[in-house]
Amino acid sequence: MISRDSARHYLGTYWCEQAWLGADRGVMAGVRLSVEGGALTAVETGVGSVPPGATRLAGLTLPGIANAHSHVFHRALRGRTHGDGGTFWTWRDRMYEAAAVLDPDGYEALATAVFAEMALAGYTAVGEFHYLHHGPGGTRYTDPNEMGSRLVAAATRAGLRLTLLDACYLHGGIGRPLAPVQQRFSDGSVNAWAERVGGLAPLAGPTVTVGAAVHSVRAVDPGSIAAVAAWAGEHGAVLHAHVSEQPAENEACVAAHGCTPVELLDRCGAVHDRFTAVHATHLTADDIDRLGRATAGCCFCPTTERDLADGIGPSTALRDAGARLCIGSDSHAVIDPFEEARAIELDERLAALHRGSHRPDQLLDAATRHGYRSLGWAGGELVVGAVADFVTVDTDNVRLAGADDVAAAVIFSAAPADVRHVVVDGRVVVADGRHVAIDVAGALASSITAVWDVA
Amino acid sequence: MISRDSARHYLGTYWCEQAWLGADRGVMAGVRLSVEGGALTAVETGVGSVPPGATRLAGLTLPGIANAHSHVFHRALRGRTHGDGGTFWTWRDRMYEAAAVLDPDGYEALATAVFAEMALAGYTAVGEFHYLHHGPGGTRYTDPNEMGSRLVAAATRAGLRLTLLDACYLHGGIGRPLAPVQQRFSDGSVNAWAERVGGLAPLAGPTVTVGAAVHSVRAVDPGSIAAVAAWAGEHGAVLHAHVSEQPAENEACVAAHGCTPVELLDRCGAVHDRFTAVHATHLTADDIDRLGRATAGCCFCPTTERDLADGIGPSTALRDAGARLCIGSDSHAVIDPFEEARAIELDERLAALHRGSHRPDQLLDAATRHGYRSLGWAGGELVVGAVADFVTVDTDNVRLAGADDVAAAVIFSAAPADVRHVVVDGRVVVADGRHVAIDVAGALASSITAVWDVA
Repeated sequence: MISRDSARHYLGTYWCEQAWLGADRGVMAGVRLSVEGGALTAVETGVGSVPPGATRLAGLTLPGIANAHSHVFHRALRGRTHGDGGTFWTWRDRMYEAAAVLDPDGYEALATAVFAEMALAGYTAVGEFHYLHHGPGGTRYTDPNEMGSRLVAAATRAGLRLTLLDACYLHGGIGRPLAPVQQRFSDGSVNAWAERVGGLAPLAGPTVTVGAAVHSVRAVDPGSIAAVAAWAGEHGAVLHAHVSEQPAENEACVAAHGCTPVELLDRCGAVHDRFTAVHATHLTADDIDRLGRATAGCCFCPTTERDLADGIGPSTALRDAGARLCIGSDSHAVIDPFEEARAIELDERLAALHRGSHRPDQLLDAATRHGYRSLGWAGGELVVGAVADFVTVDTDNVRLAGADDVAAAVIFSAAPADVRHVVVDGRVVVADGRHVAIDVAGALASSITAVWDVA
Repeated sequence: MISRDSARHYLGTYWCEQAWLGADRGVMAGVRLSVEGGALTAVETGVGSVPPGATRLAGLTLPGIANAHSHVFHRALRGRTHGDGGTFWTWRDRMYEAAAVLDPDGYEALATAVFAEMALAGYTAVGEFHYLHHGPGGTRYTDPNEMGSRLVAAATRAGLRLTLLDACYLHGGIGRPLAPVQQRFSDGSVNAWAERVGGLAPLAGPTVTVGAAVHSVRAVDPGSIAAVAAWAGEHGAVLHAHVSEQPAENEACVAAHGCTPVELLDRCGAVHDRFTAVHATHLTADDIDRLGRATAGCCFCPTTERDLADGIGPSTALRDAGARLCIGSDSHAVIDPFEEARAIELDERLAALHRGSHRPDQLLDAATRHGYRSLGWAGGELVVGAVADFVTVDTDNVRLAGADDVAAAVIFSAAPADVRHVVVDGRVVVADGRHVAIDVAGALASSITAVWDVA
């Protein structure tokens, strides 16, 4: 039992009954983690009993888990997109309805609740792919980063580490003007995007950083892609983009530019080791080679890719080429890092008709270390100097009882309900399965109801 | 709060805050269910408050959910099949190791724990596809149905409705002898199978029935398939068979018999409206037509089909042809009826690249009514005369908060942890999320550890 007072601890010692210390070391029993100033200052193994003053973490402790791709407001759609046959258009109409009505207060309330749901599910960090910048019709707020600052407030209150991936979004399709609802997303030009995003710097802190994003090759022209990539390079920021989620995007890109989205991004200087291609579902062999040679991140969002009928991306080929797979819950049809990670392997099995393309430790790397790198943090590992983010999963429950390979069992069989303790930046966020600061179900219900009462 | 004393109630009244009353009526608020002698005797809607003496069921109450395909002992493999790359052979070697060592006591202990895990997850009925009949090496037990009777004892103690699908298993492949471990499965001849299964009749009761199964066209020759089908017809029993789970089965069947497994089963008189084809993954257009015209059941086991890399079956085509889809957790890689039901649609989306092939009410029908029919029970519906089996899902939690279409939200986003109350045959089996009779995690841990201590 962790006292709720420990939510305020910033310096402390934890004793893990078992901890996963990476692919090389595997699961070790009796691991002491020492934390100071938000970082791990010691990781000792073979500690047979709980040291005096240490907090006991029963079960399996994992490094922090990164949700590398989130559109937080899509959570308002859950359980509301299956009427009228539940086609893609049902979903997109509802998504645009929600996007049209959110105001700063509503956005912050919803984001706080959803980030807290993520923490309860075992996520310690989130990459929020943010494009809901302006007011309805594109009207600027007095603070042009009003909406981004609300996301920072939400993540801080929910206790989640945040990479604010501010997305450039300029067009309604290749060579097409913005639709009315998309006016909220656009800064009008890439220079205006860069100027606004430059103003986000004061929001950065121990648990907040700013990254750049190209919404997609549909929404950003090549010259602007190059400018966003240059901005990211100058600022040492990570860069994300939606890439080849649907075949139609590839067809439009080839028709307009004579090359695939990956090649276009590469020509614009965007494909490098701080780049993450989100989805990366419908790729050519050349695309895979480019992403691999760059050691780029590839963020798979399998529960969303199932939900939106995107298809199954070439996860094994990407990994073998050198890309670093990570995970995201994207549209939040469900929020479950274990299902997300195992689905990389399970959906590959459905496509390849054989088992065992991704080992459990590779899936754990995707959920932890690779995700942290994609989001620009030195973490997702239980090593000295890493940020002090970790997650403890109860192993004494019906889902995990009887397993001998506990790390594999957690990846392949655990559920969010099994997450007992979550520590971010050395602070306890979830204790005994409950968020220390927020009534999460209540916050979700009220914030989502508020969205649809207006819509 | 339901008193644990109510575990002994056999006559009672329940008031559902909300209940799903089938595809036509949808979700209704304030539903009173009256139960007598294990059957629903009244279903009244519009009951505004909890009637005196009624048990309040907060959340959404669903009809009983059928797990139409289970190999209960495979649960011992969870978290133990991912070493050495985790190929299919890793899995099968472990499966045969477990099959080789189970004795009646160990089988009953494991089955009790796993059936109880199913009840906690929201299943009310199970079809146990049973082929572990005899002792090691095929030695007969004094009671030739020792192992089957242990399954009955396990289901009774766990509170689950059971269809004991006793499987004929004669060959180690088409024209191939049994491997040593398979000796336990075989009766030697279909006549011996029928004689033994005839002895199961005394085990039937209000919550137990006996069905027949053909393990597969690999393990049963055409003449014996016809004999099993005839036995089922004479006894009014349901009939199940593994069908076309892997392409290799089809190839072997075509090579040996000049037709697909479905056509072979049909020629043998097995394909009719009391037949259920389990998996039905790799089918021809003719197979789909035959199963549809027969209004046969087709039991999809998507979490197993993902885990074993079977592929994605033609769920929409089968349904459109007239087949009745149902669900099974099969190898128990996970036990989660919601994931199983939604995966029918989600995996179809991955194959078809469009959304909305199966509506939520069709997936609910698969989980409930169609599964009960596949298992030979008049249930899986909240109607007068049906068996009194139902499941209540908490809707006031992080996964379901904010949804307006609560039935769709449950199918697409709920998890076993959300199951609060389970009633089978008018008896409370799960109350407030706990099994009323069994420490399930403890029972799983001890029974699974015992299997591998011997293996």
